[in-house]
Amino acid sequence: MTARTADLPHIVDAADFSASWVLDELFPRAEIMRQVHALGDSRLLTGRRMFGLFFQPSTRTRVSFESATTSLGGTFSAIEIGADAQDDEPLEDRVRVLCSYGYDFLLIRHHEEGAMRRASAASSVPVINAGDGDGQHPTQALLDAYTIHREIGRLRDFEVALVGDLTYERSVNSLAELLAKLPDVRLRFVSPSTLRIRPAIRERLTAARADFDELEDLSAVAATADVVYLTRAHSERMAMAQRFDPAGLRYGVDDELLAKMKPSAIVLHPLPRGAELPLGIEADPRVACFRQAENGVYVRMALLTLLLQAREPNSRLTRLEVRA
Amino acid sequence: MTARTADLPHIVDAADFSASWVLDELFPRAEIMRQVHALGDSRLLTGRRMFGLFFQPSTRTRVSFESATTSLGGTFSAIEIGADAQDDEPLEDRVRVLCSYGYDFLLIRHHEEGAMRRASAASSVPVINAGDGDGQHPTQALLDAYTIHREIGRLRDFEVALVGDLTYERSVNSLAELLAKLPDVRLRFVSPSTLRIRPAIRERLTAARADFDELEDLSAVAATADVVYLTRAHSERMAMAQRFDPAGLRYGVDDELLAKMKPSAIVLHPLPRGAELPLGIEADPRVACFRQAENGVYVRMALLTLLLQAREPNSRLTRLEVRA
Amino acid sequence: MTARTADLPHIVDAADFSASWVLDELFPRAEIMRQVHALGDSRLLTGRRMFGLFFQPSTRTRVSFESATTSLGGTFSAIEIGADAQDDEPLEDRVRVLCSYGYDFLLIRHHEEGAMRRASAASSVPVINAGDGDGQHPTQALLDAYTIHREIGRLRDFEVALVGDLTYERSVNSLAELLAKLPDVRLRFVSPSTLRIRPAIRERLTAARADFDELEDLSAVAATADVVYLTRAHSERMAMAQRFDPAGLRYGVDDELLAKMKPSAIVLHPLPRGAELPLGIEADPRVACFRQAENGVYVRMALLTLLLQAREPNSRLTRLEVRA
Repeated sequence: MTARTADLPHIVDAADFSASWVLDELFPRAEIMRQVHALGDSRLLTGRRMFGLFFQPSTRTRVSFESATTSLGGTFSAIEIGADAQDDEPLEDRVRVLCSYGYDFLLIRHHEEGAMRRASAASSVPVINAGDGDGQHPTQALLDAYTIHREIGRLRDFEVALVGDLTYERSVNSLAELLAKLPDVRLRFVSPSTLRIRPAIRERLTAARADFDELEDLSAVAATADVVYLTRAHSERMAMAQRFDPAGLRYGVDDELLAKMKPSAIVLHPLPRGAELPLGIEADPRVACFRQAENGVYVRMALLTLLLQAREPNSRLTRLEVRA
Repeated sequence: MTARTADLPHIVDAADFSASWVLDELFPRAEIMRQVHALGDSRLLTGRRMFGLFFQPSTRTRVSFESATTSLGGTFSAIEIGADAQDDEPLEDRVRVLCSYGYDFLLIRHHEEGAMRRASAASSVPVINAGDGDGQHPTQALLDAYTIHREIGRLRDFEVALVGDLTYERSVNSLAELLAKLPDVRLRFVSPSTLRIRPAIRERLTAARADFDELEDLSAVAATADVVYLTRAHSERMAMAQRFDPAGLRYGVDDELLAKMKPSAIVLHPLPRGAELPLGIEADPRVACFRQAENGVYVRMALLTLLLQAREPNSRLTRLEVRA
Repeated sequence: MTARTADLPHIVDAADFSASWVLDELFPRAEIMRQVHALGDSRLLTGRRMFGLFFQPSTRTRVSFESATTSLGGTFSAIEIGADAQDDEPLEDRVRVLCSYGYDFLLIRHHEEGAMRRASAASSVPVINAGDGDGQHPTQALLDAYTIHREIGRLRDFEVALVGDLTYERSVNSLAELLAKLPDVRLRFVSPSTLRIRPAIRERLTAARADFDELEDLSAVAATADVVYLTRAHSERMAMAQRFDPAGLRYGVDDELLAKMKPSAIVLHPLPRGAELPLGIEADPRVACFRQAENGVYVRMALLTLLLQAREPNSRLTRLEVRA
């Protein structure tokens, strides 16, 4: 676990983040980035270049990082490596070559868990995990946590329902691990019995003495949850699991469920949405998923500037520390 | 109809353009952009970012906008959304997320007529239609009209032959509607009988009291036309329609047809060309299709700066108004 | 043959490069670019734009040029033209349109030998060959030669083994032609008998009075070669040719072969590697393939600035001539 960005050369696994790093380094920086973004035309990353290496397609994560980089004056380029070309070259060689080309950050999405550790071992610049297999998506966890913090005003002492396909939805893995480090957080995993959280996550949570339980119906926690974190319910796997509940309402929200929720609670969703978050329901201000998407840009801007600053302690980025 | 850019938040339909906006706002700005482009390294859009969302592939329109944006110092990025991913997410959600990421312009090409109205309703920044279905391609119409204006010295009192697949060629739909607003323009639609202009266009032209007729052979108007606007003749549809005229000369130009044309007339083509504009014929200076392509960059630079200026009335772009 | 960049409007064929241009113009400039790159955030190409037109896929060459361009402050954009769209439009039209859009450099990869001459004839800006069919890859030859020069301290008086599929590996064609122009270079072509250098290359080398021979086993020259230039051995063609030598060691290196090599010799490889350069063998400092990849960026930065300077003799780039 890492208290300072200086000890965090790569962003690979949410398990590497400490609560103090998240709360004291990242989030305040994200608030600054919100202002920097609003002012427009920042030059904080001018001359800096991010390269994306996508072994699996990505649009949202890729575009969010692209926006974060270019809004700070940096450049972003990327390639997708199709299934037919993935074995053409060892991942380590690809990383070494990109480092030798002088890129400042590597953003990698890969279909194998563990690929990120190999990539980061071969890299002379920060590697950022944009999703590895069904494992981790650590920057999604950071933006989710940031959104909770901003929306409910604290990142402790709350109840969160994590809902849907908990076996394969990597956002949830990373977020659960991160939230388990925070005081007085109650994790409630709501999924079909065939799509429960993985044993490895359950063990890690138990080891961390996290307060969690597992349920099969979202309505059971609607009245008490401060945060309802939905995931896409109309995957093939969810369709299979829900054969007898085609509407999927037990893993989504509708007006009835929103009526049971606290006025101060929020609904999050990593998007794209499916039937679990019906069109138009975002009119309820508690549905925060578009603010969550926006926050992703600020959190990623914060992350990039912190990573760079940790490598270049004399850069002008350090001036961002002086805050009113 | 819009007289001023301030009343034109999105560029969706050529029907929204007034003659005065085209002649008094857009074209003079395009002339300035021609100079700005020649000088190189403009910073007028530094820090501004355009995002392209392509539900249908595009190379020419996309690259033309990319060039317009980057030549003004802005950045351009885009994604193509393949047929398999088009139903993954509502168009409105995609637009909302891109707005929340802070992009300044959205360029959208979509396979459904009407998609642009939905996209622009969901957008907090200008949406530009890069072609919707078989419907509209309004910026193509603007660059076509600009080219006519520049090449023949006026945008009134001329005869234009619009030639080819008039049912499905969206450039022609948008251009005909725009030209119909101008005084003393005679529109001559030349097409196989199976590929005539659509009833909806015919009705709009009649309502606008446009002077137009429909023919089946380009040679009938060669001697009188001031502008011959060709479209690609070797589409499958054209091949079907022309079964008995495989050379396709009735919908294209060759040396013989050029010989019949006025010395002051011009031949336009949105490119890419087919058999209707034979290789080498561009040696005739009346064939203006490459100047037309070039003009597209200036018109789009003009459009972007006008849209931005309308949103930010105090920006330095307003200084461009002071012209010698 | 070209002694000065001013006489080299396009980069099409290694046969166009003179030894003096390579040694006296390009390589010193590449050394400067190494420094420029290390300093970061150069503005030498700010406002300049390269466009890539890829009729065949490329990752390494494309990304290397992208890095070269963006590290100098320029912008890079590109399209891939799939097999289904390649006949949509004459190459010359594509080039003319891109020139009219104002791009400063065109980078083209094409599947037909000779396409580059057609493209450069139609272009008003420098065309750079990023590989044409099985023919030429001239900038790869430049970076290879630069790496030899840097690694062994001279570009004359050495023995080089060019190894593998010499019929179809275009890097080797270009490099052999370039090296044949230099004094006291001994070229040793090592390949299966079915994959020998092409007759046309053999004739050109003979005409240039080059010192060369052809062999079938790399171990025969291991002890004398100063440079071992490997190419990918596990292509289908190589697999066919090596039916009776599945390990492919006669066209690759292993610890045993490295032990036979001179301490001062180097192993080059254009990457991606196959079985001919086993994983881990890069621990031997004589394996220079990642330094070679890095050098590609500096050589391409040098090339771009020289091409631009030749067109704009009064640009500030000329100040780069003043060297300590």
